[in-house]
Amino acid sequence: MSASTQRKQRVLTGYRPTGPMHIGHWFGNVENMLRLQEEHECFYFIADWHMLTTHFDRTAELPGFTRELVLDLLAAGIDPDRVTLYRQSDIKEVAEMTLLLGMITPLGWLERVPTYKERLRDAAERDIANYGLLGYPLLQTVDITIVKGELVPVGEDQVPHLELSREIVRRFNRLYGPVLVEPQPLLSETPLIPGTDGRKMSKSLDNVINVRDDEETVRRAVRTFITDPQKVRRGDPGRPEICPVFTLHRRFSPDILAWTEENCRSGALGCVECKTNLADRIVTYFRDFRERREELEHRPGLVEEILAAGAAKVRPVVEETMKAVRDAMHLS
Amino acid sequence: MSASTQRKQRVLTGYRPTGPMHIGHWFGNVENMLRLQEEHECFYFIADWHMLTTHFDRTAELPGFTRELVLDLLAAGIDPDRVTLYRQSDIKEVAEMTLLLGMITPLGWLERVPTYKERLRDAAERDIANYGLLGYPLLQTVDITIVKGELVPVGEDQVPHLELSREIVRRFNRLYGPVLVEPQPLLSETPLIPGTDGRKMSKSLDNVINVRDDEETVRRAVRTFITDPQKVRRGDPGRPEICPVFTLHRRFSPDILAWTEENCRSGALGCVECKTNLADRIVTYFRDFRERREELEHRPGLVEEILAAGAAKVRPVVEETMKAVRDAMHLS
Repeated sequence: MSASTQRKQRVLTGYRPTGPMHIGHWFGNVENMLRLQEEHECFYFIADWHMLTTHFDRTAELPGFTRELVLDLLAAGIDPDRVTLYRQSDIKEVAEMTLLLGMITPLGWLERVPTYKERLRDAAERDIANYGLLGYPLLQTVDITIVKGELVPVGEDQVPHLELSREIVRRFNRLYGPVLVEPQPLLSETPLIPGTDGRKMSKSLDNVINVRDDEETVRRAVRTFITDPQKVRRGDPGRPEICPVFTLHRRFSPDILAWTEENCRSGALGCVECKTNLADRIVTYFRDFRERREELEHRPGLVEEILAAGAAKVRPVVEETMKAVRDAMHLS
Repeated sequence: MSASTQRKQRVLTGYRPTGPMHIGHWFGNVENMLRLQEEHECFYFIADWHMLTTHFDRTAELPGFTRELVLDLLAAGIDPDRVTLYRQSDIKEVAEMTLLLGMITPLGWLERVPTYKERLRDAAERDIANYGLLGYPLLQTVDITIVKGELVPVGEDQVPHLELSREIVRRFNRLYGPVLVEPQPLLSETPLIPGTDGRKMSKSLDNVINVRDDEETVRRAVRTFITDPQKVRRGDPGRPEICPVFTLHRRFSPDILAWTEENCRSGALGCVECKTNLADRIVTYFRDFRERREELEHRPGLVEEILAAGAAKVRPVVEETMKAVRDAMHLS
């Protein structure tokens, strides 16, 4: 079979609406989603129910975050005519199937998922050891299988989740018949994008540059980045390989990358100038995005339309799966 | 306010379709349901999703069990014009609300429910330590609160479940606003009905008399009942207070109860005759029920009609609750 006539494989990925999109999200998720929509049949969803597993006490922010995420994705180039873009909570069957698959999912399988204990630890000060958090990978399994997702883009740390999904699928099919599709991991590069303090960029660390930040905010944030501590002033030789500013240059500055590395090492390039160069390029990189975003922002009813259309598009797929699941389990 | 104009309180109770109804169910559940429908606004539901918590590997029997349970309840006198009789799985919002309440239900609250560990122990040979089983009291909480149930008939052993429901309701209302109604227990006598071996009548102990058993089956089962081991033959004095046959006489034989006690103690009444007397009365007691049951059995489409009407009746109540829950949580 030639590549052009081969059936496209179905990819499923979700995005939690937990706040403004930052540069780490952009390179960790959005770039991947843009590439995948060229090659596959993609189902992208706003994972608002997942958001509750850790943010159940912050739901007042949810409508705004959802709206902004949809606009961000559209402005970034996610094409709702090409992909199926929908909101998880619009598809109530996801909850029904979660209840059903939960009946055959051993607690031990969920308890051994590494990210579960990590999340508990990361949120030690908050009270999130809830039933829903433990069920997170089960809900993911439903997200995938209810649309018959074949490929799931995952980073290394998400592989155990997907292995769990595959086990649940196998158990279901063994108990009730071959209904569900076993998803495969699509291992994707998740580049480590450093924040201003050199640690992984993360809203909770308050070290982010958001993709919608205006020029002045970007410039201010870039100026606060840590650099090689041995390079105190211009003239001191720097080590680009340990400098978070240089890590970002790799993403944003192909035009001056070799030059930056050379002149940092020699000491000729000072950090102030180097940061200005980076800020210029970040601002330029996101200029088109921000313009489109601004334009979309002012189209009334757009988000509601997009979500309604997405729900209508995914619904027949979901209903087909649910009917097969109910029939196999002898349920109404 | 006079009793006649006082608003009736709303009662909610569910019944798991796990097999033929026996005499223990009849006096433990059905009698109670018959009495409550006279006094309250009752919501009775077929708890088929609950059945999955322990019987997920036996779902092929579910349609038959559901059908038989509906017919049994109708024949027993549950009046679908007076109560709201529906099937849990017809109300998909129950799954949605279970997912939502699960996000705020601490695992510790569920793990400490005594019946959870009991069930695990009772089914030690089977593999039921699943996510859904742990969530059993959460699902019950949704059953109750989604119809704004005010009173829940419970035996002593179910009081911790209801206390958990009340805690979940309080937590929800504290987090999102006063939406859910805190249910109150309606402590109900759950008489211990002994089976043929003297232990509590239970299908899993194979010691039951089913309410639909024909006359010959009833007589055969009654003959196998154990009695006071010190009373070997007629003439030996018996101890009615330790005899399971006499315990059943208390339910079925008001006409000869004093006579039976007296003549058992004196030894004048032999166990064979005593059992014949009991079997006569059990057969008579259920004769009308069995005739109505037989008649209903032959009305095509009856069960489907009843369940469709029940779903239509409960749906507006459920939709009102779900809308309030979603709004309070800022969800779509």
